[in-house]
Amino acid sequence: MRLSRYFLPVLKENPAEAQIVSHRYMLRAGMIKQQAAGIYSWLPLGYRVLRRIEEIVHQEQIRAGHIPLLMPTLQPADLWRESGRYDDYGQEMLRIKDRQDRDMLYGPTNEEMITDIFRSHVNSYKDLPLTLYHIQWKFRDEMRPRFGVMRGREFLMKDGYNFDVDRDAALHAYNRHMVSYLRTYERMGLTAIPMRAASGPIGGDNTHEFLVLANTGESEVFYDDRVTGLKLGQREIDYDDRDQVAKVCEEFTTLYARTDETHDEAVFNQVPEAHRKVGRGIEVGQIFYFGTKYSEAMGAEVVTKEGTKVPVEMGSHGIGVSRLLGAIIEASHDDKGIIWPEGVTPFPVGIVNLKQGDAAADAACAGLEKALLARGLEPLYDDRDERAGAKFATMDLIGLPWRITVGPRGLEKGVVELTSRRSGTSEEMSPEAAVDRITQIYAAHK
Amino acid sequence: MRLSRYFLPVLKENPAEAQIVSHRYMLRAGMIKQQAAGIYSWLPLGYRVLRRIEEIVHQEQIRAGHIPLLMPTLQPADLWRESGRYDDYGQEMLRIKDRQDRDMLYGPTNEEMITDIFRSHVNSYKDLPLTLYHIQWKFRDEMRPRFGVMRGREFLMKDGYNFDVDRDAALHAYNRHMVSYLRTYERMGLTAIPMRAASGPIGGDNTHEFLVLANTGESEVFYDDRVTGLKLGQREIDYDDRDQVAKVCEEFTTLYARTDETHDEAVFNQVPEAHRKVGRGIEVGQIFYFGTKYSEAMGAEVVTKEGTKVPVEMGSHGIGVSRLLGAIIEASHDDKGIIWPEGVTPFPVGIVNLKQGDAAADAACAGLEKALLARGLEPLYDDRDERAGAKFATMDLIGLPWRITVGPRGLEKGVVELTSRRSGTSEEMSPEAAVDRITQIYAAHK
Repeated sequence: MRLSRYFLPVLKENPAEAQIVSHRYMLRAGMIKQQAAGIYSWLPLGYRVLRRIEEIVHQEQIRAGHIPLLMPTLQPADLWRESGRYDDYGQEMLRIKDRQDRDMLYGPTNEEMITDIFRSHVNSYKDLPLTLYHIQWKFRDEMRPRFGVMRGREFLMKDGYNFDVDRDAALHAYNRHMVSYLRTYERMGLTAIPMRAASGPIGGDNTHEFLVLANTGESEVFYDDRVTGLKLGQREIDYDDRDQVAKVCEEFTTLYARTDETHDEAVFNQVPEAHRKVGRGIEVGQIFYFGTKYSEAMGAEVVTKEGTKVPVEMGSHGIGVSRLLGAIIEASHDDKGIIWPEGVTPFPVGIVNLKQGDAAADAACAGLEKALLARGLEPLYDDRDERAGAKFATMDLIGLPWRITVGPRGLEKGVVELTSRRSGTSEEMSPEAAVDRITQIYAAHK
Repeated sequence: MRLSRYFLPVLKENPAEAQIVSHRYMLRAGMIKQQAAGIYSWLPLGYRVLRRIEEIVHQEQIRAGHIPLLMPTLQPADLWRESGRYDDYGQEMLRIKDRQDRDMLYGPTNEEMITDIFRSHVNSYKDLPLTLYHIQWKFRDEMRPRFGVMRGREFLMKDGYNFDVDRDAALHAYNRHMVSYLRTYERMGLTAIPMRAASGPIGGDNTHEFLVLANTGESEVFYDDRVTGLKLGQREIDYDDRDQVAKVCEEFTTLYARTDETHDEAVFNQVPEAHRKVGRGIEVGQIFYFGTKYSEAMGAEVVTKEGTKVPVEMGSHGIGVSRLLGAIIEASHDDKGIIWPEGVTPFPVGIVNLKQGDAAADAACAGLEKALLARGLEPLYDDRDERAGAKFATMDLIGLPWRITVGPRGLEKGVVELTSRRSGTSEEMSPEAAVDRITQIYAAHK
């Protein structure tokens, strides 16, 4: 993409309304525009990151054997009357009347609807296990929407629902979700720690939240700091292997890590003092096992192998897709702007032409662009007639992890400069070597 | 994907509520489930096709130089008061009050919001031309939602908006959209004919609708039947070349083709009688050039090269993404079920194991699955313990264009059977040859 043809409305000034760094940088980098309180347009750069995050979530859910579908944003109130939540939900639910005066709502979550889909089509243990999920816009009419996309009203969420014949199978589904979430966050460059949570209005027995450590987090967190060193890495996971999956969960949930809601001072004090940490965290996902709460209320039953009818065992599992952009920026930035992890960056690399209009520099930049595109890596090429300082400031602000700088002086020596946004270090090399290096870096992020 | 692990709730009976074939087959093939009048869940098979169509639309828009972003589903009423459409729009607009009693609405289209984004960030001819588009859920509160996804209330639409400094540039944007739409529909296996349209509530001078011929279409159409033979084919388009793009448009709009709204009997009678056809069509897209209607009302101005301020020239251009599934099925089916064009099929090929549990058949099917996956072609493998007739009926109903049938008898001779859903013809060949053939067929549909 050439910047001269793109729509990247960066702001020079800090917007007054933004209280936290992610909100500030998302506005300044031309990623979002507020359209109403807690409702945003995703401008081209923001949309690219959103899509990338969505893609990673899809890939890891599918890898875990979960099946994507898509439920609508609007739901009939009657479904929620069956579960009893229509009256319970309170003012965060956006209630709507259509032209026929029917009660509708903008879905804040989908337990009722997915249970309805299930009961309409499945009635035997033979069709289980089954986990269905979607990535769809939700609406929660927050009293005080704030912090940009971190606490918006219209937000994008992945929510998945498992259906299993018994508690053991449902707990395996729970574990499968935990592991798939760990991998999802790792691919985004995040350390998200599963912490035992209190059950909210959805109800639930077993439930963990995933928290990213950040000073601006809404929750106070208490943890053994060795938990931040745990990594899934490249290990192979067989999601059908109950023992393997359970062992991974054990590994990631044994060290103390809790939010203020479930914190237990006495247990915490058993953590060696050198490892005992208190901080703040941003919630980026949650998994729930709630058993038969909805299936009983809504009559979603299956016939077991033994021929008896039982309400199906369920759980629901969510990832805050749009909120993740804010969380990633909170966790990865400096005073010049965003620093995107390679897994989610809107463009893998930026090209800065130091002397637009110089035949050699223009040709070298076009050559780099072409070579990168041929490897499936679309660069953002700043081909504007601007001074170098302004180009660097834009690249630093929007946070592409790698930058190739091209100028007449380097080209005389046959070199360009490859710079890491994170470390700030630069290295001179031939254009071909720069393309090879970028290709290698992103090979792990397909 | 193995069918035993998938969620494909096919129906044996014809659902009573479905009046047209696409609605009937989408329900029977387990692609959609109605959640409220005109509001559907997209079950896994339907969702796969929807995503595929979305992907083609994205690819062709990006190829034309248009830039994706994403606007929210809910909009503040105030924006629509600026253009005057809040009062004009009538009962099809779903009006909502939030908990602060603010007037909101579920966007039926986005001219106001995109104009707001534009005026907030662009003020010079130097940033033009610019075309922004998104693919987002819309809501129109139809009095009588019917025909499944063909006339739903919550529907997925691509809507794009061009911003240009003058009329000539805006007409080029109009032409660019026409050509990109022609390619989009062709890739979906559709013949969609651009027909001069009357301007609707959006307003507009130049406007064409794209119609797919089908007996169940909502519009009466009058055309020279030579128009159905026009194809873009593989020709290279340079979307920056005004003359080339204009010539393609001329080629596709010179022969008579109009809807009842703009039909002119006198002109139609000049078409040679042998080519004069009257039929019905389904609208799958529309392009509009409307000039400064919104930019004047909303103050979206740019400074020209000469230093004067002018309201920006605009147009809006839409593709009915979710409706396209219905249109494609109306245009491509038989009495056994859907026949997906290769460009949009949910799975490129189905594998039918005639004798599940037979070691040789199971191994051959698993081998085919693996080989196809290695080529990036995910098959749907019917590994259920069902009789062959039921497996064939399911494959015919869901309409995968190719089927590989594997049985012990063929394997003794070293062959499997490759069957075309469209022609019904089968050919015996080695499993390797079948994989090669499928790979070749889909090479043109990346």
